[in-house]
Amino acid sequence: MNNLNWVDLIRDIPDFPEPGVVFKDITPLIGSPGGFSAVITDLVQQSPKAIDVVVGMEARGFIFGAPVALALGTGFVPVRKPGKLPGEVITTSYELEYGTNSLSVHRDAIGKGSRVLIVDDVLATGGTIAATANLIKELGADLVAVAVVLELDFLGGRKNLSEQGIDEVIALTHVDGD
Amino acid sequence: MNNLNWVDLIRDIPDFPEPGVVFKDITPLIGSPGGFSAVITDLVQQSPKAIDVVVGMEARGFIFGAPVALALGTGFVPVRKPGKLPGEVITTSYELEYGTNSLSVHRDAIGKGSRVLIVDDVLATGGTIAATANLIKELGADLVAVAVVLELDFLGGRKNLSEQGIDEVIALTHVDGD
Repeated sequence: MNNLNWVDLIRDIPDFPEPGVVFKDITPLIGSPGGFSAVITDLVQQSPKAIDVVVGMEARGFIFGAPVALALGTGFVPVRKPGKLPGEVITTSYELEYGTNSLSVHRDAIGKGSRVLIVDDVLATGGTIAATANLIKELGADLVAVAVVLELDFLGGRKNLSEQGIDEVIALTHVDGD
Repeated sequence: MNNLNWVDLIRDIPDFPEPGVVFKDITPLIGSPGGFSAVITDLVQQSPKAIDVVVGMEARGFIFGAPVALALGTGFVPVRKPGKLPGEVITTSYELEYGTNSLSVHRDAIGKGSRVLIVDDVLATGGTIAATANLIKELGADLVAVAVVLELDFLGGRKNLSEQGIDEVIALTHVDGD
């Protein structure tokens, strides 16, 4: 952790996206020159370095994943909602509290045996990350680790990921309760 | 322009998103470690340096805008579709070929008088960039320049932006015809 306390730049927005939920808003963090630089430095420092590809999920994952890829000297692969990627894709679906969601990746974006780091802003229930891990596995690549800025411990995402065999989860900071 | 010919990493996808359109796919470019690094270096070199804020539009604009912000030592401000940003926003709408689109930004994200650089992947008709410029103006900030990786000259985006008073448009590479 470097000196700037960038954690203080994450703000709480009550009742977003629905009543009773406190949303962790990272936009003041990325809007701060010192804060944005510091959080990317910490993500890079705490991530494994023997990585071939950084994968980030639409849309906030792009903001953290792309700079981490550049710092690690890897390419960046976007995982997107269906219909957004123009080439041949593979797609996976996962359950939400109400309904399902789907994510796609270009079939040729990640080579077999590639060492992959997933970068995202927040680990909540882990549904999006687990779905992305499924896409990586389907392409024959090796998910080395998941790095997030913030983990919402009370939502059990780490346990959910562990049950899917994803145990290398790096979170720079944590929210314990609600 | 540096030595790596990263332009060759942009691929044509015919008939996307609809028949007759040739989509310029930047995912092989950002998926290449050397290519991604080279295009960000070129964007930074060709952009004005006296900038306070880099603004990028959901979602591909995040992939280029966030690294440029870090390189210029500024914060990054995301412009998003309505309903995505949790704080108080201002919103603008603009015409598409069929229907309208809307974009939002946090009201407190850009200070009055801030010098702003918009970064995006592609300049097509310029509708998204002009709408983002309207948001920046409404917040009392100063749009210094627009920097894009690729300009589709035949769509007239540069002329459209000029008619809105946006004359400082940097494009790293161009597609002349279709």
